[in-house]
Amino acid sequence: MQPDLPDLPTLQTFRQCSPLVHCMTNDVVQTFTANVLLALGASPAMITAPDEAQQFAAIADALLINVGTLTLRQTEAMQRGIDGALAAGTPWVLDPVGVGMLSLRSAFCQQIISRKPAAIRGNASEIIALTGLSHGGRGVDSTDSPASALPAAQQLALQTGAIVVVTGEVDYVTDGARTLTVTGGSVLMTKLVGTGCALSAVVAACCALPGDRLENIAGGCSMMKQAGAYAAQHSRGLGSFAVALLDALSIMGEPA
Amino acid sequence: MQPDLPDLPTLQTFRQCSPLVHCMTNDVVQTFTANVLLALGASPAMITAPDEAQQFAAIADALLINVGTLTLRQTEAMQRGIDGALAAGTPWVLDPVGVGMLSLRSAFCQQIISRKPAAIRGNASEIIALTGLSHGGRGVDSTDSPASALPAAQQLALQTGAIVVVTGEVDYVTDGARTLTVTGGSVLMTKLVGTGCALSAVVAACCALPGDRLENIAGGCSMMKQAGAYAAQHSRGLGSFAVALLDALSIMGEPA
Amino acid sequence: MQPDLPDLPTLQTFRQCSPLVHCMTNDVVQTFTANVLLALGASPAMITAPDEAQQFAAIADALLINVGTLTLRQTEAMQRGIDGALAAGTPWVLDPVGVGMLSLRSAFCQQIISRKPAAIRGNASEIIALTGLSHGGRGVDSTDSPASALPAAQQLALQTGAIVVVTGEVDYVTDGARTLTVTGGSVLMTKLVGTGCALSAVVAACCALPGDRLENIAGGCSMMKQAGAYAAQHSRGLGSFAVALLDALSIMGEPA
Repeated sequence: MQPDLPDLPTLQTFRQCSPLVHCMTNDVVQTFTANVLLALGASPAMITAPDEAQQFAAIADALLINVGTLTLRQTEAMQRGIDGALAAGTPWVLDPVGVGMLSLRSAFCQQIISRKPAAIRGNASEIIALTGLSHGGRGVDSTDSPASALPAAQQLALQTGAIVVVTGEVDYVTDGARTLTVTGGSVLMTKLVGTGCALSAVVAACCALPGDRLENIAGGCSMMKQAGAYAAQHSRGLGSFAVALLDALSIMGEPA
Repeated sequence: MQPDLPDLPTLQTFRQCSPLVHCMTNDVVQTFTANVLLALGASPAMITAPDEAQQFAAIADALLINVGTLTLRQTEAMQRGIDGALAAGTPWVLDPVGVGMLSLRSAFCQQIISRKPAAIRGNASEIIALTGLSHGGRGVDSTDSPASALPAAQQLALQTGAIVVVTGEVDYVTDGARTLTVTGGSVLMTKLVGTGCALSAVVAACCALPGDRLENIAGGCSMMKQAGAYAAQHSRGLGSFAVALLDALSIMGEPA
Repeated sequence: MQPDLPDLPTLQTFRQCSPLVHCMTNDVVQTFTANVLLALGASPAMITAPDEAQQFAAIADALLINVGTLTLRQTEAMQRGIDGALAAGTPWVLDPVGVGMLSLRSAFCQQIISRKPAAIRGNASEIIALTGLSHGGRGVDSTDSPASALPAAQQLALQTGAIVVVTGEVDYVTDGARTLTVTGGSVLMTKLVGTGCALSAVVAACCALPGDRLENIAGGCSMMKQAGAYAAQHSRGLGSFAVALLDALSIMGEPA
């Protein structure tokens, strides 16, 4: 257990609330994202047509927008999803994958961060790029340390009103005034595709929980780090790490 | 083994025939669907462009239409796929994921159920919604019991000429006159994304087998339930459950 | 270890160079492809919008074009990706999945093989179909033996300037003049979706390594075959085979 965060209470609340999370996410991580949410007791749904995205975002408990494999056509559907979310008071979360140098996603992210996201989760390079201070990382990987992105994260939080989450070896969760720190996890999480994207879906789900949102999101980050640490100890390589990570998320907090 | 169904004969026929199944399915379950079919000895192919979908449906032994992440563009390709299937006598199967409240898929499903599907497989809420009696479940999850959907399933079978499969704790397979019941399985199957969607692909493959179609489909449902029960006994959580499920499907019926 | 190929040197170079591989690949294999590359130490990114594809191909160390679930819209993005790759000197690799009878991909593959691919990897039926000598296999599966496709592979290599890789029970890697042979592996690799597609991504990564390209690609094929043989020995069925394959790729070449 992490000594610095009340994570098990978050987990219990999470399982009790079972948030319905509308994930508009990239092509690479759909299955893993759905299974991570299911393992934690949430209910995922991926709805992509513009009309349906708007309808569903109004029903869902939270909406995730992830631009990893963004196309022009999807920007329209995502805008419609945000329309539905804002009209219904559904919190929505941005994962600005690879933002910085790539043109379509950079323009799109700059546009939608003015639409009152509840949270933004990215790696250090993405958060720095989103504030316009750099051109991003190497492909979808960060080339900056989380600590170096903390000032950018705080600025972005104050600018957008969102809780900003910078993840990496250490996770920082900030609303610009308060900052929580989450440690632990395993370097293997950076070697498995989709762990960051799935965490963004967990962050979205945490935005639907009752209580303090900053603490709930930090609790969500802590659940993932704990699962990652468990999985690193119960695996032989990348394949069994992925299996053990889902195992950990599904058995976590249950009586042994 | 299920005492009420001749499942192993279905499995042997399945492996011998090795149906070529054209899957037009949603973005979330493509990999898992393909591996479930491969584990059972079938040959999956996912072909999505309109022209190619029509060409391939004429070659395939069965076609699956799953509307889980439907877009307007895909409705055209799916119609072309059904054109090819009907012209060639290829059986096609509908999985009406999330039908009910969401507009595009609801209108599309209502339209294509008049095009002589060989089978329709859904959860209870989807089958009830397809008959126009309700507005569907919670996201893509059912809020009704399979038994409560049996009258709707029988009505839908008589209306469309399809064999209708309602799956859940108990599976019902009906042509409107005869109804077979499949029990067993594990509640963990509802916690892993894609088990229902993959079952629909298995149902499609079963429509290509020689013999009684109703019994073959019930045999397909039984294979999945048996694999689920095996996997529940050989896993620690959601990740190892998914692994054990594919293991079970691939070793099932082979000499120990 | 394969006695006929210097594979461990390739692996060490691979891990040291950590190629950034831009994968424009089909919907079914995205996650597995990314994890195979990550397991070997490469860095995958899937970028799909036309403008971004062109931008990213110029930054990446290699580009993969896989036509498994090709749509008309994607052909434009892929052409733009190839534009970016050629302008920047980034090697690009074609995986002509299911080429032959299906119209869109067949015309597209015929068009782009004139655009100086660094390598082409396919199964025997695909390589034969690409030379116009047949109409392809059964769905996405080969109905020809790798050896029977060797003359077509050599002809295709001379015609396009690409290194052509025919994979199956035996892999042949040829530039038209020299041909390397890679043996080993396991028949289970044909039962898991995406092994061939992921190998094409590895081949693309190998095109970015220093040294002899023909030997590097053969080394990449050998790494996959060794991982497959390991996985066959450490698994009970299809699910655990997939897990063990990723485990093998990630621990291969590391001190025990």
